Amino acid sequence: MFENGQRLVMIGDSITDCGRDRPVGSFAGLGGGYVSLVNALLAVRNPDVKLDILNTGISGNRVTDLRDRWQADVLDLKPEWLSIMIGINDVWRHFDRAIGDQVEVDEYEEILDSLIVQTEPAIKGLILMTPYFIETNINDPMRKMMDEYSAVVKKLADKYDAVFVDVQAAFDAYLRHRPTQSLCGDRVHPNLTGHMIIARAFVRAIS
Amino acid sequence: MFENGQRLVMIGDSITDCGRDRPVGSFAGLGGGYVSLVNALLAVRNPDVKLDILNTGISGNRVTDLRDRWQADVLDLKPEWLSIMIGINDVWRHFDRAIGDQVEVDEYEEILDSLIVQTEPAIKGLILMTPYFIETNINDPMRKMMDEYSAVVKKLADKYDAVFVDVQAAFDAYLRHRPTQSLCGDRVHPNLTGHMIIARAFVRAIS
Amino acid sequence: MFENGQRLVMIGDSITDCGRDRPVGSFAGLGGGYVSLVNALLAVRNPDVKLDILNTGISGNRVTDLRDRWQADVLDLKPEWLSIMIGINDVWRHFDRAIGDQVEVDEYEEILDSLIVQTEPAIKGLILMTPYFIETNINDPMRKMMDEYSAVVKKLADKYDAVFVDVQAAFDAYLRHRPTQSLCGDRVHPNLTGHMIIARAFVRAIS
Amino acid sequence: MFENGQRLVMIGDSITDCGRDRPVGSFAGLGGGYVSLVNALLAVRNPDVKLDILNTGISGNRVTDLRDRWQADVLDLKPEWLSIMIGINDVWRHFDRAIGDQVEVDEYEEILDSLIVQTEPAIKGLILMTPYFIETNINDPMRKMMDEYSAVVKKLADKYDAVFVDVQAAFDAYLRHRPTQSLCGDRVHPNLTGHMIIARAFVRAIS
Amino acid sequence: MFENGQRLVMIGDSITDCGRDRPVGSFAGLGGGYVSLVNALLAVRNPDVKLDILNTGISGNRVTDLRDRWQADVLDLKPEWLSIMIGINDVWRHFDRAIGDQVEVDEYEEILDSLIVQTEPAIKGLILMTPYFIETNINDPMRKMMDEYSAVVKKLADKYDAVFVDVQAAFDAYLRHRPTQSLCGDRVHPNLTGHMIIARAFVRAIS
Amino acid sequence: MFENGQRLVMIGDSITDCGRDRPVGSFAGLGGGYVSLVNALLAVRNPDVKLDILNTGISGNRVTDLRDRWQADVLDLKPEWLSIMIGINDVWRHFDRAIGDQVEVDEYEEILDSLIVQTEPAIKGLILMTPYFIETNINDPMRKMMDEYSAVVKKLADKYDAVFVDVQAAFDAYLRHRPTQSLCGDRVHPNLTGHMIIARAFVRAIS
Amino acid sequence: MFENGQRLVMIGDSITDCGRDRPVGSFAGLGGGYVSLVNALLAVRNPDVKLDILNTGISGNRVTDLRDRWQADVLDLKPEWLSIMIGINDVWRHFDRAIGDQVEVDEYEEILDSLIVQTEPAIKGLILMTPYFIETNINDPMRKMMDEYSAVVKKLADKYDAVFVDVQAAFDAYLRHRPTQSLCGDRVHPNLTGHMIIARAFVRAIS
Amino acid sequence: MFENGQRLVMIGDSITDCGRDRPVGSFAGLGGGYVSLVNALLAVRNPDVKLDILNTGISGNRVTDLRDRWQADVLDLKPEWLSIMIGINDVWRHFDRAIGDQVEVDEYEEILDSLIVQTEPAIKGLILMTPYFIETNINDPMRKMMDEYSAVVKKLADKYDAVFVDVQAAFDAYLRHRPTQSLCGDRVHPNLTGHMIIARAFVRAIS
Repeated sequence: MFENGQRLVMIGDSITDCGRDRPVGSFAGLGGGYVSLVNALLAVRNPDVKLDILNTGISGNRVTDLRDRWQADVLDLKPEWLSIMIGINDVWRHFDRAIGDQVEVDEYEEILDSLIVQTEPAIKGLILMTPYFIETNINDPMRKMMDEYSAVVKKLADKYDAVFVDVQAAFDAYLRHRPTQSLCGDRVHPNLTGHMIIARAFVRAIS
Repeated sequence: MFENGQRLVMIGDSITDCGRDRPVGSFAGLGGGYVSLVNALLAVRNPDVKLDILNTGISGNRVTDLRDRWQADVLDLKPEWLSIMIGINDVWRHFDRAIGDQVEVDEYEEILDSLIVQTEPAIKGLILMTPYFIETNINDPMRKMMDEYSAVVKKLADKYDAVFVDVQAAFDAYLRHRPTQSLCGDRVHPNLTGHMIIARAFVRAIS
Repeated sequence: MFENGQRLVMIGDSITDCGRDRPVGSFAGLGGGYVSLVNALLAVRNPDVKLDILNTGISGNRVTDLRDRWQADVLDLKPEWLSIMIGINDVWRHFDRAIGDQVEVDEYEEILDSLIVQTEPAIKGLILMTPYFIETNINDPMRKMMDEYSAVVKKLADKYDAVFVDVQAAFDAYLRHRPTQSLCGDRVHPNLTGHMIIARAFVRAIS
Repeated sequence: MFENGQRLVMIGDSITDCGRDRPVGSFAGLGGGYVSLVNALLAVRNPDVKLDILNTGISGNRVTDLRDRWQADVLDLKPEWLSIMIGINDVWRHFDRAIGDQVEVDEYEEILDSLIVQTEPAIKGLILMTPYFIETNINDPMRKMMDEYSAVVKKLADKYDAVFVDVQAAFDAYLRHRPTQSLCGDRVHPNLTGHMIIARAFVRAIS
Repeated sequence: MFENGQRLVMIGDSITDCGRDRPVGSFAGLGGGYVSLVNALLAVRNPDVKLDILNTGISGNRVTDLRDRWQADVLDLKPEWLSIMIGINDVWRHFDRAIGDQVEVDEYEEILDSLIVQTEPAIKGLILMTPYFIETNINDPMRKMMDEYSAVVKKLADKYDAVFVDVQAAFDAYLRHRPTQSLCGDRVHPNLTGHMIIARAFVRAIS
Repeated sequence: MFENGQRLVMIGDSITDCGRDRPVGSFAGLGGGYVSLVNALLAVRNPDVKLDILNTGISGNRVTDLRDRWQADVLDLKPEWLSIMIGINDVWRHFDRAIGDQVEVDEYEEILDSLIVQTEPAIKGLILMTPYFIETNINDPMRKMMDEYSAVVKKLADKYDAVFVDVQAAFDAYLRHRPTQSLCGDRVHPNLTGHMIIARAFVRAIS
Repeated sequence: MFENGQRLVMIGDSITDCGRDRPVGSFAGLGGGYVSLVNALLAVRNPDVKLDILNTGISGNRVTDLRDRWQADVLDLKPEWLSIMIGINDVWRHFDRAIGDQVEVDEYEEILDSLIVQTEPAIKGLILMTPYFIETNINDPMRKMMDEYSAVVKKLADKYDAVFVDVQAAFDAYLRHRPTQSLCGDRVHPNLTGHMIIARAFVRAIS
Repeated sequence: MFENGQRLVMIGDSITDCGRDRPVGSFAGLGGGYVSLVNALLAVRNPDVKLDILNTGISGNRVTDLRDRWQADVLDLKPEWLSIMIGINDVWRHFDRAIGDQVEVDEYEEILDSLIVQTEPAIKGLILMTPYFIETNINDPMRKMMDEYSAVVKKLADKYDAVFVDVQAAFDAYLRHRPTQSLCGDRVHPNLTGHMIIARAFVRAIS
């Protein structure tokens, strides 16, 4: 699917960021998360296909933040491919800070849709990754809300014929055998094994 | 209940520790958690009753660790009062590290009971605090197991006529109105509000 | 008194600041002093009333400094409630630096009055807290001068029907039983127990 | 091949070490190299098989150093499985420090053989990994010498029926498409992609 | 009084210590307090009389601590001259920590007397400095108690014909013109001007 | 000479600077050199005369640097008294950096004279301090040149009836009894004793 | 060749930079590489010829970067002599980052030539140093490419009658007796011995 | 003179030490002074003669300190060659610390002689380097005393037929053209140029 010399921009929140270089993460500056693992896995599997992967994730971002920096951090970089993983903070703010402005699911869909619309014509392919919550109880309030946001991602992937990476499903498969605490304490920021789950789901989806 | 000039030793795990001084926390070295708040609340309410509060909590401790240091960190300090809050790590190790030695609930009860037996004759009063998990779903595997350990604490409080502090119940009351994420990310190490919940439950129980 | 969803701005000097976040302290960034304790005490007592508490204290401030940043740090934040504790540095500069510009008590009253006048119409309620000096000898020169500034606060609270928090009185009550050195060395910057005295006086006054 | 609950000890030099915890690396303390990647890859592929992986690599080690700490860092840990990757420093010392004691290839084989002999009866399985030099010119003096040491590893793997991981071959495959500089500057300490090459070779060999 | 080549040991608490070198402060390692100022003032006034001044003050010390280290930090150093300034912490502990072991004035006198008795035969001269509290209100509880300890120092200076340095009187003279806050916040640890007051009182007394 | 409430600005190079606060050193921010000692000595001798001493020394400065910042660091501060100690670097640059722009003695005199001319009318009194080199051999090339610059200072002090502080002479008196190495290694930046020599020379000259 | 009082500017990449002062390295701020060694060797051999050596190397620079800062870092400094060592990064970028803009050998020659053309009229002499790769296999892809860039430097030295320093040849002579690993790990950034090789080649060429 | 594979131990004070590795400096850990320069100069001149140079200098050492560690830091290392440079601190202590134990020139000679006697039989060759003082006035008290100690070194070199390195003479030659300040401020610890003077004198003496 990817071809030699193409550029892939990966945008998102802290899960994508993971200490990447500023202003744009590349090569050794891709950060300590799934982006670096994706880069390494692809390089090892297909050393003949050299990709120019750029990381523009920023910790704490919600979809509204992506909108504010879309021109500089996506369009100006002129990628052939783009992956987006956003939504965890849109949901989390409903729970840790009961008060203040919130991004409701309708606004989330609307903004994400508009970002895709203005980007799609200029790129070769789009990869949409669901947000997730590392919690097996699907009635947990935050998990429940997260699933609604993930459903939006699925809907938009269908609408725009994007590659769909069901990160939540990948975590669920793992959690059938091991407890959430084996991946992280706060159910959001995983350890290396958790990032490998995301990276493997990504690589499988694009294969 | 407390009288002027008495000593209260408070032992436990990271929730008690919170960066206290070594080898024993006292005065300005009581750490950043509920122990300092208990000390401050009691001083403000009853400035005429001066207590010598000592903190001997150690992060990561399980009941087996308390046993190993009981002589030095409880008995040698010759307190009039003793509070114990232990069990969170006994439970957690079952989940974040699936492999290795575990403290099962029977062993937990047996050790805790034996510690009380050897201490009770020498002190004026005992305060037993439940462990807790900041999770409202009582079917969550870790919450469920935590409740079993808390039940042991309740049982021993009855058996030895100790002051019983139901920390889990105090958190539950708060969580009826606000989500768990407003207290902490990992459902174990709370922010100042969470420590105030513990401290207030303590102060109420001893009043 | 406070209602769910309201905003409370707390402004002052180093006693209010205590390492809060910049430009505005909120949530986990409220600093290590009475503001965080007020936030925690209110949350534990009334978990159903969620407040948006903001801390805009700055170390070293005198009433003239508040005037210079009133627009940005009070009015622009559009609070329903406002608390002010200022005056300690206005007095202290008379003693540690014998030379240079000083804020006399007349100017102190005049500025504080004018700040209240321009703010009152826009808020639901005002809370005025006295400055204090942790010294029991009321003939001590600095205590004597502090009492004059506190009298101004009392006078303005009456004039504008504000909630009045007599912080000096709260300290005096405690000091009837324990020496000043048990709260701090310099009679101004207290330890946690001292901040709890302030926070408790605050919570009692607004109840 | 691995079964649930088994322990795997991985010993070696700086490539294995990579900042692991002391005295023994485990869980979050496995370090930043191939050991952590092996742990993550296995966990993601087979979440139902929980392994207790321990890292006892030490930077700068040669086979003589392994011998000196074999009892403490291998035998005392009672593993079911053991992997060894050693030899890079045995070779490198011939080049960066022309003077001083050297481990010649005969001594290398003799010591490695004796370590295996005393360990084999107590474990379920042995994994032998070759050292490597990230250099495509097989006439380069250091590459040439490294290949001799790797040949010893191959020979011992055959002799003791161990799993053989040809790390050098895995690097060679990658280097047919990309230059050595894309993995590292010094041809020894690779970036994440290089560690992924090692980890993937390991996982493939044990499958 | 001092003669060329003699050694003067100066022992005490934090006021003496001030960051001196360990195990014994000398030359550039005399610390940032009155000891360095005494050394400099004497050198400038009498450059022909070279003294070997040693600082063995330790922060937080009470007279009981001096007793425990008298052999190593005074006698073993074989000084011709010895100065002692102790007592501030003996008094302070009565106020900041209401609870715990205290050094009462009788014990203070008894220990100080016994230290002098065992030292006097071996030295050429003794210099006794009073403790002090930078507070003008002589009815302040801590000032009042400090004066009792100072009176003991005066009594012992008379008894053993020692040089008497009335540090408290030197501070009182200064405080007739400037407020205590111009020297320090906590009335104990002065700034450079306060240390100059001590040093000048010392130099005048030995002249 | 000085009267209560007057301001004294002290300008110079690294000997004056000594880590003072920026932009202007005052109170606790006067730095670790002779300026702080002058401040302390004057305060202790005449506590009834409160001076507002400001330090505007900057390390490495030559007279040309003073000229560039004269408006901001002298005139704008509106002092009643001004002290100047400059010239050490004007001389030193001739020796450590043989190449580049140099301030010859004529230019030194011309600039210093012009600075005095524009300042004198606005101040109550001027204090001129010589530069110095801590070397007893008056034929040493750098000492010889320094004496020429000092002669200029003496000449200008006579011309403008300024208080003259012969710092070089004060060092010479001390060096008749002790070697230069007892004050410093580089013969320019002295230890506390050396700064006390300067401060004492200053205090004597203004008495 | 050099005469007393002349200025020599040395520009280049990280080999020249080595932590020099900003904006221009001089005297003690020449950095830790060959520039400081050249300065020291020349000073020791000819103490009567004082040179004003300036270092304007910047790590990571390619010839395109030199072009962008030529006015500020060469022409504005008005040197009598100029040395240039550039090209290592022009080559390296072809290998460690397969993707992105590259400086091909033609562009390298063109830019270097134009820089010389605009500088030559204003200086007394030009010194051109080859880039290098510390690798003895002349068929290694990076060595091979480096030799092409070095050939350009030789060609331009002939064309403009510049002093030619064959750094690669100096390394080759050393490498006939010792392995590359004795100078550095990455074959580019040498240790002190490697910098001495460069400095000695420089000093010999200008003699 | 030196032959391939021989070991040279270089012992001394801070001039030799310069931040070398502990317990013994070798390869990259030779420190930042003349030892590293000697190592580099020899390697560049004679790459076919590989020496094992070890640095055992320790800052502040006098000849008495060498005696105390001679077994461990010279004899146990079994060198073929040994260089000694000691005496600067033996002299300096007479000047910066007028008081305390001193190493007089007789004791200096006696100890140095005895160290040579016990070492000479076991080594191939001895290199004796004079101490120095970077001061051209031979009547300066410290220079004068240093010359006496240097004369002892010369005397012992003759007596034991050692290679004699007249470091003082090398500095003197340089100082005929440039001032002492161009090498260092304190006339003892030189910059790189000063260390190059020492290294060059060493290399010339052994050629």
